[in-house]
Amino acid sequence: MLKKILTLVFVTTAIFIGNAQEANEVYNIIPWPAKVKTVTGSCILNEDFKVNIQGDYHSRIYGGASRFLRRLADKTGVFIDQGFATKKNEYPNAILQISIERPGVVKLGEDESYSLDVSEGKIILKSTTDIGALRGLETLLQLVSFSETEYFFQTVKIEDEPRFPWRGLMMDVSRHFMPVDVVKRNIDALAAAKMNVFHWHLADDQGWRVEIKSLPELTEKGSDGFWFTQEQIKDVVAYAVERGIRVIPEIDVPGHATAMSVAYPQISSKKDTVYTIERYAGVFDPTLDPTIDETYEVLEKVIAEMAPLFPDPYFHIGGDENEGKQWAANEDIQKFMKEHDLKDKHQLQSYFNIKLQKILKKYGKIMMGWDEIFQPELPKDVVIQSWRGKEAMIQSAQQGSQTILSNGYYIDLNNSMKGHYLNDPLEKDNPLTPQQAKNILGGEATMWAELATPLTVDSRIWPRTAAIAERLWSSQDVNDYDNLRKRLVQFNLDLELLGITHLSYRDVILRNMANGRNIMPLQNMTAICEPLKGYTRNMGGTEYKTYNPYTLFADACVVDASDAVAFKHAVAAFIQKHNEENRKAVKIYLQKWATLYDDLKTLQPNPTLQKIMPIAERVQNVCKPLLAKMNGEKAKLKKKDFKVLEAPVEDVEIVITTDLQLLFEAL
Amino acid sequence: MLKKILTLVFVTTAIFIGNAQEANEVYNIIPWPAKVKTVTGSCILNEDFKVNIQGDYHSRIYGGASRFLRRLADKTGVFIDQGFATKKNEYPNAILQISIERPGVVKLGEDESYSLDVSEGKIILKSTTDIGALRGLETLLQLVSFSETEYFFQTVKIEDEPRFPWRGLMMDVSRHFMPVDVVKRNIDALAAAKMNVFHWHLADDQGWRVEIKSLPELTEKGSDGFWFTQEQIKDVVAYAVERGIRVIPEIDVPGHATAMSVAYPQISSKKDTVYTIERYAGVFDPTLDPTIDETYEVLEKVIAEMAPLFPDPYFHIGGDENEGKQWAANEDIQKFMKEHDLKDKHQLQSYFNIKLQKILKKYGKIMMGWDEIFQPELPKDVVIQSWRGKEAMIQSAQQGSQTILSNGYYIDLNNSMKGHYLNDPLEKDNPLTPQQAKNILGGEATMWAELATPLTVDSRIWPRTAAIAERLWSSQDVNDYDNLRKRLVQFNLDLELLGITHLSYRDVILRNMANGRNIMPLQNMTAICEPLKGYTRNMGGTEYKTYNPYTLFADACVVDASDAVAFKHAVAAFIQKHNEENRKAVKIYLQKWATLYDDLKTLQPNPTLQKIMPIAERVQNVCKPLLAKMNGEKAKLKKKDFKVLEAPVEDVEIVITTDLQLLFEAL
Repeated sequence: MLKKILTLVFVTTAIFIGNAQEANEVYNIIPWPAKVKTVTGSCILNEDFKVNIQGDYHSRIYGGASRFLRRLADKTGVFIDQGFATKKNEYPNAILQISIERPGVVKLGEDESYSLDVSEGKIILKSTTDIGALRGLETLLQLVSFSETEYFFQTVKIEDEPRFPWRGLMMDVSRHFMPVDVVKRNIDALAAAKMNVFHWHLADDQGWRVEIKSLPELTEKGSDGFWFTQEQIKDVVAYAVERGIRVIPEIDVPGHATAMSVAYPQISSKKDTVYTIERYAGVFDPTLDPTIDETYEVLEKVIAEMAPLFPDPYFHIGGDENEGKQWAANEDIQKFMKEHDLKDKHQLQSYFNIKLQKILKKYGKIMMGWDEIFQPELPKDVVIQSWRGKEAMIQSAQQGSQTILSNGYYIDLNNSMKGHYLNDPLEKDNPLTPQQAKNILGGEATMWAELATPLTVDSRIWPRTAAIAERLWSSQDVNDYDNLRKRLVQFNLDLELLGITHLSYRDVILRNMANGRNIMPLQNMTAICEPLKGYTRNMGGTEYKTYNPYTLFADACVVDASDAVAFKHAVAAFIQKHNEENRKAVKIYLQKWATLYDDLKTLQPNPTLQKIMPIAERVQNVCKPLLAKMNGEKAKLKKKDFKVLEAPVEDVEIVITTDLQLLFEAL
Repeated sequence: MLKKILTLVFVTTAIFIGNAQEANEVYNIIPWPAKVKTVTGSCILNEDFKVNIQGDYHSRIYGGASRFLRRLADKTGVFIDQGFATKKNEYPNAILQISIERPGVVKLGEDESYSLDVSEGKIILKSTTDIGALRGLETLLQLVSFSETEYFFQTVKIEDEPRFPWRGLMMDVSRHFMPVDVVKRNIDALAAAKMNVFHWHLADDQGWRVEIKSLPELTEKGSDGFWFTQEQIKDVVAYAVERGIRVIPEIDVPGHATAMSVAYPQISSKKDTVYTIERYAGVFDPTLDPTIDETYEVLEKVIAEMAPLFPDPYFHIGGDENEGKQWAANEDIQKFMKEHDLKDKHQLQSYFNIKLQKILKKYGKIMMGWDEIFQPELPKDVVIQSWRGKEAMIQSAQQGSQTILSNGYYIDLNNSMKGHYLNDPLEKDNPLTPQQAKNILGGEATMWAELATPLTVDSRIWPRTAAIAERLWSSQDVNDYDNLRKRLVQFNLDLELLGITHLSYRDVILRNMANGRNIMPLQNMTAICEPLKGYTRNMGGTEYKTYNPYTLFADACVVDASDAVAFKHAVAAFIQKHNEENRKAVKIYLQKWATLYDDLKTLQPNPTLQKIMPIAERVQNVCKPLLAKMNGEKAKLKKKDFKVLEAPVEDVEIVITTDLQLLFEAL
C-alpha cells in the first residue's frame, strides 16, 4: 500500500522522540505531543474509513467523532461513507478504534491524556476519558497527508498528555461585542489547539454583556443593545463543554465599572454623576462603592444568576487597574476606611474582595482575579492571574495560591509570536519548590478588544494563540520557533476550515479599500507592514472610539508579516552565501517592492488609499535602486536613505527595513 | 466644495429619470429607484456627519440609523463622531434629516416608500413609515462616493417605492443546516437589497429544524442535533422585524416528511417501517397519513407552538412533490378515499390541506403552499407559490388567490443571473385584468440547500438575488443587464462588509486544496469554470450525501465566472474591431490561460488537484496555440480541437469555450 510519498520522509522506526529533531520535520502536529515515535508506512483514507467507539464515556465523544468525520471529509474531499458516530461498538471492524475508560468531567485537572497508534490499515486511540479522546482526534486530523493519488494518515506511535492543566484564551467581549458565532468558532479553534479554558470577559467600562434578569438595567442601559441572553450563555457553555473546554466568566469589579455605573449609579463611588458608556480605551475612574450594602446586594444578584449558567467552579472578578480616584474623593469612603482601619486603597479593595469571596462561596464558586487582588489580607484559596509581570505568579505559588500566567501572552498588543512562544510559565531556573510549582496551573492568552472587532479579532488571536497552546501543552524543551512556524502552515489551514477568518478577513478590507479594483498591490503592502505594537496605535486610548472604523489598512495587517518573515530568511541566507539561488530568492521580493508605488497608483485614488501612498512610495524609492544594485547596475543609495522607512504611517510600521539595510550593507 | 470628482460625470440637473439611461451610469443604486433626478454637486462626508430623526415612528429606526452610521464608517474609514441614534430630534442641525409620518408595521403591503433629497450639505429623507426610512438609508449608503481627497454623497433627488409588495428569499435549512449567524447575515443582505420577506424552510426529508416542546422527538430524532431553539427563532424573527423584513415559516407536508416520520412513524402512511433521516437529495416516499386524526393532532401541536413565534399571518405548509406512492400502497388510505369520494391523490391532498387550513385559521394563520396545492377544491384564501412554471400563478390570480413567483428564481440551480433578472412576474402581455394582476404579490428567490453549506451558501445566493430584488422592486422597464452588472461591483463590496462571504469563501476552499501553496493558478481556473447547472451535478440526488464534502473545486466556482464574462466582452469587441486595444484586451486572458497547466503543476500534487488537472491541461492546449496565432505565429489549431473543452470535469464546465471558438474563427 505504500505509495509515492511526497510530503514526508521516513527517518526512523523505533526511537521514542520527545523533543524530536527528526519527528517534528515529519509530522505537523500542534501542540507537539509528549512522546512521538515515527513508524514507517501509511494508513490510507478512503470512503470506507469508519470510527468505532468502545468503553465507558460521556456522549460528547459522539459529537466529537462526527465532527472529526466531517472535518476529515472537508479537508480531503473524500466521500467518507460514515457520517455520524451515534452508538457504542457500531462498527467493530472500523479502521479507527477509540477505546475510553471512563466518562470525562470538564473540570480543572481532568485527565486529558491519550495514546495514538497509527499503523497500516489500523488506528488505535486509547484514553482514560472521552476528553482525552477528543484531544487525540485533533492529533489524528493533523496526521492527514497525501501522495499524488491518495490521502492517508501518517503512521506513528504517540503518547501524550499536557504539561499544564489550565490552557486558556480570554476574550474581551465588552470593548467590542463579539456575537455567539465569533465565540463559538474560537472555541472550536481552542479545541483544535488542545486548549481547555475559555475565559469570557463579560463586563467592562465599554459594555455590560450578560443578561441579569433581576437587574435588567445592566443590559438595557449598559450595553448599546449588544449582550448575551442567558439562553445564549447556556448554549455557548454547552458548546464548550461538548469540546472539553471549561468556561470561566469574568465580571470586572470594583474598577472597570462604567457600564455598571450607567445602570446603577447608586453603587458607584461618585453618586452625583450621570454616567455614560465609555467610548474610549484606557483606565477610567468609575469604581463600585465597597462601603455600602447595596453594592453587595447587586453583586449577589449578579452572581446568583450567573453561577448556575457556568458549571465550572471558578469565577473571575477582575480586580485590575483600580486607581482609587473615586474612593479618594469620596468623604464617606474615606471615613469608612478610617473606621475600619483600612490604610490604603489596596486594603479597601481586599476588604471588598473578601466580602465578594464570601458571596461567591455561597454559590459554590472559587474566586479568581487579576494580580492586583493578590494582597496579604486575602485568603489563599483564590486563583491569581498574573499579567503585570511574573512576580505575582511566583509569590502566589510560594504562598500557596493557585495562579496562571498571562504576562507575555497579551496577543492584543501585536507582538511577534516568537516572544509568546518562548515565554514559559515555569522556567528552569525558578525559585519554587516542586510543591509550590504545582500552584502554577498554566496560562491564558488575553484578547483585549479595544482595537478588535468581529471582522478582525480572529487575525489577532490566531495563529499566535497556537504558539501559546504549545507552550502550555508541550514539554519545556519543545522550543524551536522555526520548526513551529513550519508546522503552522497546515494548522492555519485547519483553523480556516473550522471557520476562523484570520486568513480570509484581510481581503475583505482590501477589496473595500480598492473599490473593486485589483487588490494585489495592497496585498503586497500588508505582507510587509504590521500594526503598531503595544499601546502606540491608540495613544492614551483616545485616538479610537469603540464605534470608529476598524476597516483600515492597519486592521488588514497582522503580526509576523508573511513576506517580511520570508525576506528575513532570504537575506540571511544570501549574506551567508552569495550564490545565484540565494540572490534569486532575495530578488523575488525586491522586484515586487520596486514597483509597489506604481502598482498602487493603478488603483482609483480615494482618501484611504492616499493616506498609505507614502508607504508604497518609500518602499519603492529604496527597493528600486537596491534591486538595480543587485543587478550590478549603478544606483544612488546611501545608508541614511533607509531612515525614512522607520516612521510609522497610518498606524503601521514597515517591517522589512532592517533586512533591507543588512542586504544593502552586504552588497 | 466641488472637488476633483473621479467617479461620476454630471450629465443633467433637471429631468426626472425613471428608467434612466444616464442616471444609472452615475449612481450605483440597487434596486433602481422609481424616480431619480440627477443634481449637480456633492455632500461631503466627514467626522461631523450626524443623523437627526423626527416625526412619529417605531424605535427600529434608531437601530437602523445606528447601523447606517457604522456601515458608513466601515466603508469609508471616516471617524464619524456620532455613534448611535437614540432620541427624537437629538441633532437638529444634523446633515441627514429623517422625517417619518407614522410607525411602520412589518406586514404585507406596508408602505415602504421614501423620498431622498441629497444636496450640498443637506440630506432630507422623508417617508410615511420607519420601514420606508430604512429602505431610504440603504439607498443613501449606495450614494457614497469619493474624490482623491474626500468622501461624499452624490447629490440627487429620488422618489421611490416598490413595484411588488412581496420580495423574498427562501432559505432551505433542512438539507444542510444553516446556523443563526448564516441566517442573520443573509437577512442583513436582504435588507440591503430592499427585500422584505425571509421564507424559512424549516423541515424536510433531511432534517426537522425547529424545536417543538410538546413533540421533542422531532428534533431529538429528526435533526442530527442541528436545529433552532424557540429562543433562537424569536431572536431571528426580532432581528428581521428590526430590519423591516417579514419571516414566513415553512413546514413541508404531507410529502417531504422523512424527518417527521423518523420521529413519529405512526403518522406516516407506511407504518411498519423504521425511518431514518434522508441522506440523499430528491423526491422520497415518506408522506403523512391524511386519513387519521393523530396526524392532525401532531400538526396542530406544531402549529400551536410555531404560530406565536412568527408574528406574520402567513404560514407555508409546503405541499410539493407528493407522488402519493405511500398512499397508493396503503389499503386503509385507499379505502378512505373511496368512502370519501376522493378520486385521486390530488383530491386526497386537498382534503388534507383543507383540514390543515382550518387548524391554521384557528391560530390566526393564512395558508401558503407550493403550486401543487392549487386545486379546485381548495378555498381561495391561500397564497400559491408558483415554482413549476408561471401557469399556476396566472390561474391563481385569475381565480382570486394571491400568488408569488419562484419559477425562474431557483438560484440553487446555478443559472446565469441574466435569466433571473429578466424573469418578470407580470409580463406586459399577460392575460390578467388589472384587478386579477393585483393578486400577483411578487416573488421569492429559492435557495435549496442540497449542495450548499454555511461555507458556500452565500455564494449561491449573492449577487444573483440582488438581480431578483431589482426585478421585484424596480420598474418593469429597468432591464439593462449590463448596467445592472456595472452597479453590482459596488453592491458586492457592500454585501461583503455586511458579512456576506460570497467573495471571501472561494479562497478558503482553494487554500485548503493547495495546502498552503500559491492559489493564483486555482483562482484563475475558478474564474473560467462554473458549477454544473440544473440538477446535473447531483444526478438522481445520489451522487452527494448531505455529509459529503462541499469543499471541492466545483464549490469554489460560481455562476457568471468573472474572467469568462470579461473575456466574452473582450472577444465581442475584438470581433467588431480588430484594433490594437481590443487585441490586447483579449490577449491578457489568453496569456493567463496559455500557462494554466504549467502553473497548476507548480503546486504540490494531491488527489484533489489531480482530478482538476485535465481542466488546466485542456485550456492550455487550446489557448497556447491560439495566443501564438494572435501573435502572428504559426499554430496548429482546428475547430474540432475545441471540442475537448465541452466535457464537464469534476462537476464544473469550462465556460470560455464558445468565445474561444468565436475568437479562433475571427482570426
